[in-house]
Amino acid sequence: MSTLSGVPGLFRIENCSRHEVLAKMRDITPGKWRHDEVFGQYCSISDHIDAPAREVYEYMADTRSLAEWTLTLRKLRETDEAGLWVGDEMMGDSTQIYTRTVANPEAMTVDYHCAWDQGKHLWMIYLFRVIDSQLVFNRPGTVLLWTNCRHPFYADNPWPELVPSPNRQWVGELWDLFYAAHWLELQNLKNICEHRHATGTSLIPNWSEVDA
Amino acid sequence: MSTLSGVPGLFRIENCSRHEVLAKMRDITPGKWRHDEVFGQYCSISDHIDAPAREVYEYMADTRSLAEWTLTLRKLRETDEAGLWVGDEMMGDSTQIYTRTVANPEAMTVDYHCAWDQGKHLWMIYLFRVIDSQLVFNRPGTVLLWTNCRHPFYADNPWPELVPSPNRQWVGELWDLFYAAHWLELQNLKNICEHRHATGTSLIPNWSEVDA
Repeated sequence: MSTLSGVPGLFRIENCSRHEVLAKMRDITPGKWRHDEVFGQYCSISDHIDAPAREVYEYMADTRSLAEWTLTLRKLRETDEAGLWVGDEMMGDSTQIYTRTVANPEAMTVDYHCAWDQGKHLWMIYLFRVIDSQLVFNRPGTVLLWTNCRHPFYADNPWPELVPSPNRQWVGELWDLFYAAHWLELQNLKNICEHRHATGTSLIPNWSEVDA
Repeated sequence: MSTLSGVPGLFRIENCSRHEVLAKMRDITPGKWRHDEVFGQYCSISDHIDAPAREVYEYMADTRSLAEWTLTLRKLRETDEAGLWVGDEMMGDSTQIYTRTVANPEAMTVDYHCAWDQGKHLWMIYLFRVIDSQLVFNRPGTVLLWTNCRHPFYADNPWPELVPSPNRQWVGELWDLFYAAHWLELQNLKNICEHRHATGTSLIPNWSEVDA
């Protein structure tokens, strides 16, 4: 224990009996959760996709896939800055969304670093992990983990001068609906990947034919 | 839309008006969640740690850190198989837990592949991502994401002949308490990292002094 001397607030079997550990765990497990207790600061969702993890990763790692599986991000084109794309956010009034995809083929993480209205500070970050379902569920396919963190700019837009229209609702006002929006988008992604895999089609479309 | 022809169940701005999208999102956002609706198949928790992400990653990527921040995993020693460790699970009756850490320094993923009683099939996988909090919260430190998936072996132990004692409770019977157990362990990890960082101590202890 010498390495832990002075560390406050530790809860370990050395200072809590097995009985106390179980009682404490039951204490902090509520029967019901409020929506904002679960999705207030972090919005994490997950699902299984019946298609190979490597292919799902490769599909998602291409920024243009967003024009297929998201609800409202369309007409993506690459800017003069390599890897930085801009598209139309169809929920907003003439809102432009900038995005850069940061992916790691070994860990199969895919992160979309985004922002509305400007592309200099990409603070809306969609964090994904693509996992081989065989490892974690003992069956083929993909497990997809998706988390967004509630960045303070969701509460306050630091670039009010870039708002394209006075009626435009700021993205952060929709935070309470992020679970629902992301769940719908995850179902789109699942349906696209599963349909292509089941019909023997490559998950990667001909990108020139995507509405991008 | 040609690339999506034939894909069933899509929910996109092209087939749903903005009004319908918002109404649908409100429909599928419950006021309250049952515990098993949130934590039934995936147990995901997250927190901020006031210590640098790279150091938190390096601490966690060493298997021996588990003997400090977990509730009950102790006396870790490496087996004859390189990278495969075995320790004592202090909640079980003489239960041995095997673990192999798979970490990616670039993506800062840290996965503990574990199992009780045997080290051939490591099916209990603790999936972590260490993220620079500056990116997602605009403040220094670490955001830690942690997910476990409910592997079918939690319901049925495929190795009943290896159970060390007839009274031993199987790990899967505790699934409903995983949220609470992991939350307590995440607080331990946070407290250890924050205390060391605040006192100017390396997050990495002298491993020979850890109860491992």
